Amino acid sequence: MRFAEKYGPWAVVLGASEGLGEAFARGIATRGINVVVVARRIEPLAHVADDIRQRLGVDTRPISLDLASPRALEDLRAGTNDLEIGLVVYNAAASYVGEFEDQTLESMKSIVDVNCWGPLAVCEHFGRPMLQVGRGGIVLMSSGAGLAGSAYNAAYAASKAFELVLGESLWAEWRSRGVDVLSVIGPAIDTPTFRANMPPEAIAAMPPAMAPADVAEEVLDALGAAPSFVPGESNRQGIAILGSLPREKQVEAMAAAHAAFAKHPVE
Amino acid sequence: MRFAEKYGPWAVVLGASEGLGEAFARGIATRGINVVVVARRIEPLAHVADDIRQRLGVDTRPISLDLASPRALEDLRAGTNDLEIGLVVYNAAASYVGEFEDQTLESMKSIVDVNCWGPLAVCEHFGRPMLQVGRGGIVLMSSGAGLAGSAYNAAYAASKAFELVLGESLWAEWRSRGVDVLSVIGPAIDTPTFRANMPPEAIAAMPPAMAPADVAEEVLDALGAAPSFVPGESNRQGIAILGSLPREKQVEAMAAAHAAFAKHPVE
Repeated sequence: MRFAEKYGPWAVVLGASEGLGEAFARGIATRGINVVVVARRIEPLAHVADDIRQRLGVDTRPISLDLASPRALEDLRAGTNDLEIGLVVYNAAASYVGEFEDQTLESMKSIVDVNCWGPLAVCEHFGRPMLQVGRGGIVLMSSGAGLAGSAYNAAYAASKAFELVLGESLWAEWRSRGVDVLSVIGPAIDTPTFRANMPPEAIAAMPPAMAPADVAEEVLDALGAAPSFVPGESNRQGIAILGSLPREKQVEAMAAAHAAFAKHPVE
Repeated sequence: MRFAEKYGPWAVVLGASEGLGEAFARGIATRGINVVVVARRIEPLAHVADDIRQRLGVDTRPISLDLASPRALEDLRAGTNDLEIGLVVYNAAASYVGEFEDQTLESMKSIVDVNCWGPLAVCEHFGRPMLQVGRGGIVLMSSGAGLAGSAYNAAYAASKAFELVLGESLWAEWRSRGVDVLSVIGPAIDTPTFRANMPPEAIAAMPPAMAPADVAEEVLDALGAAPSFVPGESNRQGIAILGSLPREKQVEAMAAAHAAFAKHPVE
């Protein structure tokens, strides 16, 4: 079955105003599927929607909402109820890097709301009609940070573990029913958010950041083939090595990679 | 340093009215630390508090609250603000086993509230004063279900992945500052909740359930020694084998272990 037959006629991309979400929206449109683009800021979002419609010849719809708000999911449902949604990409995320002690409770709450409750409620809402028609796809953007404890990234890493295991669970539960769920173990990706959050010494300690369009293409090709997926061959090799270590060594390797964020001496 | 010097004079055990939480409260009291026991149902809780005080000679305090309620953390703070808390055991959990499609949004919300937001807010609230005095311990009860995607247990497994990675992250971040955090990769444990949720055919497919008192003892002994811990030697061997598999095979093994909960045919 062609991609658009399996996952069309409409997709929803959450967190689509720039970076990887925008690349997903363009990649999906290139495969012939209309796209609802969702993000907080309406201006860049409207620009992305207009540009995709003009260049790629599909229909688009921008929806501005804040996934940390209690009424976000109601607004999302209201804005998409008239469309048949065959594909959802959950790329929205709240993030924080630094000492847990310095993080506000509000920042922690937005991470749970946007990175845990959001994906869960989105799978619940869009997954049910996909199961009824026996086709569809959901992509959850998790992160390598979710594979094991990550110092100076605790709440975010925990939330990415949630997304990783949620998507893998639903892959196993829905694969025989025509609905493909994929958790993406996201590597370093060269997006505006990445450049804003990562100090140069942290970037220097990482594998080279991938281009968003390359990540989107690999992920869309992988959808349906596995419960979780690491974009980039060198990243796959790195994650395989990490996974071969005892869990405590994985946690220590993560802490070493985040040492640039430590204010207190690390053992 | 003796256990009570490091982790006293008071501990808080959440989810302490029966089963594993009660065993933790008794184990901690046996080690000479006063215990605040927290759960929804005041009657069994008051009974546990009275019995521990009478038999084990420490002070106890029962606090009745529902961790799924928005005011739970405020009530917990108010009920413990006059005490010096050196140890917290987060054993409370919302659970659901079965098809994701059959789970209500309310059940999913309570899993996020009790299993993700609760541990995060508890680490934030009780962790800060521990860091100030340079000693303390926090135990988060995660589960083997959180290690990789688990069909027919999706939201719960995701929440347990959150707890696992949260505790491991804070272990790495706080170990040099005198505060020990431990995520427990919980095995099958012979508690009232376990017996109520698990059909006989699921129990038959699992390793033998451990006695709650044995789990509590092993966990209290392990606190500080590692970021995460599997109680029971045969369980440690099983988890090590699981962890040696490629991630897709781990997800398939979890799905096979949960086949008793499938209503639709499994591939």
